[in-house]
Amino acid sequence: MGEHLQRYREHTGKISSLGQIAALIDWDQQTYMPAGAAGARSEQIGVLSELIHSLSTSSEAGDLLKHAEDEVAGSDPDSPEARMVSVGRKNYDRSIKLPADLVSEISRHCASAISVWEEAREKSDFSLFAPALKKTFDLTKQAAEYLGYTDHIYDALIDQYEPGSTQASVKSMFANLVPHLVKLNAGIANAPQVDDSPIRGSFSVPQQRAFTLDIASRLGYDLNRGRQDETAHPFCTSFSKYDVRITTRYDEQFLQQGLYATLHEAGHAMYEQGVPDEWQGTPIGGAASLGIHESQSRLWENQVGRSRAFANWIFPHLKAAFPGSSADTPEAFYRAVNKSEPSFIRVEADEVTYNLHIALRFELECALLSGELAVKDLPAAWNEKMQAYLGITPPDNALGVLQDVHWAIGLIGYFPTYSIGNLVSAQLWNSAETVIPDLTGKIQRGEFAPLLAWLNQNVHAHAARFLPHEVVQLATGAPLDPAHYVKYLFGKYSDIYGLSL
Amino acid sequence: MGEHLQRYREHTGKISSLGQIAALIDWDQQTYMPAGAAGARSEQIGVLSELIHSLSTSSEAGDLLKHAEDEVAGSDPDSPEARMVSVGRKNYDRSIKLPADLVSEISRHCASAISVWEEAREKSDFSLFAPALKKTFDLTKQAAEYLGYTDHIYDALIDQYEPGSTQASVKSMFANLVPHLVKLNAGIANAPQVDDSPIRGSFSVPQQRAFTLDIASRLGYDLNRGRQDETAHPFCTSFSKYDVRITTRYDEQFLQQGLYATLHEAGHAMYEQGVPDEWQGTPIGGAASLGIHESQSRLWENQVGRSRAFANWIFPHLKAAFPGSSADTPEAFYRAVNKSEPSFIRVEADEVTYNLHIALRFELECALLSGELAVKDLPAAWNEKMQAYLGITPPDNALGVLQDVHWAIGLIGYFPTYSIGNLVSAQLWNSAETVIPDLTGKIQRGEFAPLLAWLNQNVHAHAARFLPHEVVQLATGAPLDPAHYVKYLFGKYSDIYGLSL
Repeated sequence: MGEHLQRYREHTGKISSLGQIAALIDWDQQTYMPAGAAGARSEQIGVLSELIHSLSTSSEAGDLLKHAEDEVAGSDPDSPEARMVSVGRKNYDRSIKLPADLVSEISRHCASAISVWEEAREKSDFSLFAPALKKTFDLTKQAAEYLGYTDHIYDALIDQYEPGSTQASVKSMFANLVPHLVKLNAGIANAPQVDDSPIRGSFSVPQQRAFTLDIASRLGYDLNRGRQDETAHPFCTSFSKYDVRITTRYDEQFLQQGLYATLHEAGHAMYEQGVPDEWQGTPIGGAASLGIHESQSRLWENQVGRSRAFANWIFPHLKAAFPGSSADTPEAFYRAVNKSEPSFIRVEADEVTYNLHIALRFELECALLSGELAVKDLPAAWNEKMQAYLGITPPDNALGVLQDVHWAIGLIGYFPTYSIGNLVSAQLWNSAETVIPDLTGKIQRGEFAPLLAWLNQNVHAHAARFLPHEVVQLATGAPLDPAHYVKYLFGKYSDIYGLSL
Repeated sequence: MGEHLQRYREHTGKISSLGQIAALIDWDQQTYMPAGAAGARSEQIGVLSELIHSLSTSSEAGDLLKHAEDEVAGSDPDSPEARMVSVGRKNYDRSIKLPADLVSEISRHCASAISVWEEAREKSDFSLFAPALKKTFDLTKQAAEYLGYTDHIYDALIDQYEPGSTQASVKSMFANLVPHLVKLNAGIANAPQVDDSPIRGSFSVPQQRAFTLDIASRLGYDLNRGRQDETAHPFCTSFSKYDVRITTRYDEQFLQQGLYATLHEAGHAMYEQGVPDEWQGTPIGGAASLGIHESQSRLWENQVGRSRAFANWIFPHLKAAFPGSSADTPEAFYRAVNKSEPSFIRVEADEVTYNLHIALRFELECALLSGELAVKDLPAAWNEKMQAYLGITPPDNALGVLQDVHWAIGLIGYFPTYSIGNLVSAQLWNSAETVIPDLTGKIQRGEFAPLLAWLNQNVHAHAARFLPHEVVQLATGAPLDPAHYVKYLFGKYSDIYGLSL
């Protein structure tokens, strides 16, 4: 590695360390921080963010990058070195394109909008939130114009979370997905419902803590470089690949909550733990995108965790940990964790209905950005789409348009990454199954290491060196195709619900 | 407040926020960080420390300070504004006096010396540690010369931890203390030993957790701005007065460990929680010194927690939490927690013997610094003083000269702050008793608020506006006098051990 690239890496390493510290502060805030500390904590975050921003956008940073570019010019553009510099260039250009005034206005506005949203949701009164939401969209549009795009304003936004995706690519993805999901959902609605009583009952929280952490560790989550805590909303956070923590939430009456949140977050964590050592602290040292991240969490949660093979494997562990559980057979457990029914709340949705919630949000975001839809008309448009896609209408806005925090904190163009993750997980699973002999049998015997090794090699090892669509192509030999997910769902749910679709 | 002082405060506030973040990182490292994260964590700490150092010593910092000095010139030199600037000046001058090369050499050396010390202590082999210790003293002497002093090289060192104290003041303090302690210790050695079985037995750790935290909260530790966790070595840390956390350590067979560590750390925490809001983030916003800090922990641990009144109050709570405890009466509990006997390890020492351990360390530090004692002769000198002061000789160096981490990490001139704290606690208690009607009766009834309010007003409210000796004078109307502590110990222990000294 040349001298200039080395100096550029030292610079990005410093910013990366400060970013890891910011992540630790956020973790503490969500886990152990006493309530009275909120004000002082904002001050600390403000000072650190300002330092990170000023180091990232300094003219020194620009010079280091320029020299590194000159140094790698002419080398293989796909080499790690060339990609470090090109990803670094993209990040740098994006951060200097946004005027500092606009960045602070957005951050001040969102800080106040979140309390407004909380109150509006509490009171289920959209009119309280509407003015703040309108301003969020106005400011976001301004930011998108500064960031720039060729075809659709949405492209500038989604590219921040899912590099390479566009409004057109997402629209086409949903066009090949939504009609199938609507059909499957309607089919299930007419079939006898599955019994989920085997995962309901009384599951002591201390026992769940020990059980879920043991399962996560058996999947391959390295506890020497991780730990699990409890928060209102489960998440995974990484302070380098040597310290990747997950959180979960337990429901004493419902085993699915804590167990599947743990599988999901452990999937995220194994990705972070698997990125290459030698790229740590560089622009390509982290995840490829939110979508690829979600593909890892969903693969372990769903393709593995909601499979019949997994049910067969976990069943004796479950009975040992919870002898009082009413699950009589692995099959009863399998059916219980795969119950599907339309629900109002996205985060409680199952594999069949989840992506319909996302398609709805994507379409509404596009309509709001293009001006086809006014903020005041949003609740009606939301409810109409809920009825069209899921066959249910929310009884109030708290269970409808006000349910997610995303728009309140300015995350517009973010939702589709969840669906991309779901589709990628199915496509990756298919490839893994063709390559790993007897993968289903291995899962059934609790042999998760071959699958993790395949993901390490085919997904994690690329980190952010390749764009999300390049990772999919490299790992599966084909571009992203919703057909894999559709086939997976139709196969599984036709069987469970006895449908012939 | 003038414009320049305001700008200076913004600058110190920023540094203070980064220091609070560094404290959070350290807390996490000692509580929840997974073992594998150590390397990445050092990197994060290194980047943050460098930023703090460069902000603190920048020419911009010097200019802001100079302008603020000009602005407050002529105002009352004891006013908070003038003191912010004069304390800021002292800190700034100290940090720019030390050459950056020496600072990094010390920090690199200590980082490696700590592992050397760990191995030496493990093997109880002083010769392994001697070369590193010699270098620590050599580097410390160089630093002391840069810092400057008038009378004794020790003055430059102790002033960092206990502003205003000198080698002469500490020597005189111990001259008025050590002979009394030696005499009391010898008297106790010849009396029948106290029975501490009432605090031994089986005390479940989860039960101890709930019990000690409840007691700390009843004393006045505000859990809305604090929390308790467990670590190998108990400590208190503050990320602003709104987030002051303590840790403790439990011994399932010995109640004293967890309970009294909690009282001690809660005493530290109530000090940090009690500093004035309006000085947060300024050079006078924290504690006056380590000694004043220790006076607060010791006052709650000893003057309160090891009093007969406290034993009477806590007894029913103790029996409710631990019905199986063999403590039959409050008096049996009182005697058990006041058992005194010479021991090799400082951190396990009682009120009678503790300060003898400190006097020994102080005298050896002075002799090593002045060259009267060579590092190779240290173990013999240590053992000789142990015999002279405590009447016991350590069987090996792990139980002797190798027991403390302080010298390994370069803390020389630090130990006396523990004794200063012990003496100040007794003097403060005497003043509180003369001012608060029926203080002992109040403790016995669990009414701790009046004592905390008196400490708030007479100690905490001064924060670092005044020097430690000024705080003692303001709170007690007199300079520090070891006679208070001697009288307190002689009264208490003559009674418990039936001595007539």
